[in-house]
Amino acid sequence: MNFLEERILRDGVVREGNVLKVDSFLNHQMDIELFDEIGKEFKKRFKDCDINKIITIEASGIGIACVAAKHFGVPVVFAKKSKSINIEGDVYMAEVESFTHKCKNQVVVSKSFLNSDDRVLIIDDFLANGCALQGLISIVNDAGAKVEGIGIVIEKGFQNGGRTIRNLGYHLESLAIVESMDAEKSTVTFADQEEYK
Amino acid sequence: MNFLEERILRDGVVREGNVLKVDSFLNHQMDIELFDEIGKEFKKRFKDCDINKIITIEASGIGIACVAAKHFGVPVVFAKKSKSINIEGDVYMAEVESFTHKCKNQVVVSKSFLNSDDRVLIIDDFLANGCALQGLISIVNDAGAKVEGIGIVIEKGFQNGGRTIRNLGYHLESLAIVESMDAEKSTVTFADQEEYK
Repeated sequence: MNFLEERILRDGVVREGNVLKVDSFLNHQMDIELFDEIGKEFKKRFKDCDINKIITIEASGIGIACVAAKHFGVPVVFAKKSKSINIEGDVYMAEVESFTHKCKNQVVVSKSFLNSDDRVLIIDDFLANGCALQGLISIVNDAGAKVEGIGIVIEKGFQNGGRTIRNLGYHLESLAIVESMDAEKSTVTFADQEEYK
Repeated sequence: MNFLEERILRDGVVREGNVLKVDSFLNHQMDIELFDEIGKEFKKRFKDCDINKIITIEASGIGIACVAAKHFGVPVVFAKKSKSINIEGDVYMAEVESFTHKCKNQVVVSKSFLNSDDRVLIIDDFLANGCALQGLISIVNDAGAKVEGIGIVIEKGFQNGGRTIRNLGYHLESLAIVESMDAEKSTVTFADQEEYK
């Protein structure tokens, strides 16, 4: 069991409807030392990739991406939900559906900050049905940039988002893959990550 | 002129309506080395404060707060816009109006992650009319916690948000205080920060 799986068992809370609450350390209160460990682990897993930019999506991916970026020495661009008057009109856009919020959002990345020379590591906190991730990949592809890798903190292995992305040939690494959860017994079982290579 | 003022002059873009675009390094694409400098500077300016938690607001405050938190060795909690089904009902709430997005948002912090023992540093990217900041202060006060300090990256000194907060006795430090901007001439003038002590 790795450091993240141990932390999930210790501080994660399972709720009905396959909800794994990790808001005490990952996506509301954020444990920066843990984020630093996560960043180190991403760097280890993508050590052979030539990455010059990290892309994530607001809001809960931002903190992880920024702390991880220190280990890669690259800038972070985050895809913004909906359109702000401070973003120029020239954007890459994708529509993503949120499992958590039960709503659709347009996410945008300014064309100024993503181009065909970019070799991108996508980072996000959760991967379930993969909708947010598909949106980010589509934005990177629209820009003619290359997805060098995808680093996910927690994947719900019992949903099909990760399988689809791996089938498409992307190098996807999830630091914890939840195989099953039981809210009544308050248990979480993790998958053997070797089986997801 | 400090490192941030120099960077604003180099890469900031002034738009009509007192809009200062810093999205190439601060709030869309994020320069993590700059964030680290910002974190170091906050640590210097709040060195005498006994801080155990950093509070910020989604989305663009998160990256700065997380990188800065490494210099303080404390966790970050970010106030979430609107209510998520993954946040328990027990929250501190404030209503904030966004200058950028021209809309009102409820922001919430779970009561699990803020309590009367907390000594908080509030961090945000921008301070203009101060509405977001007032919301964060109100949330910290509701929790019975103490605002030890407020660290802002860019303050628009010609709007009254900062003055109000300083008049209320808060220790507010802004790393760059814009005195005036001219979109036509593409100029930015900074205030002498000593005059804002």
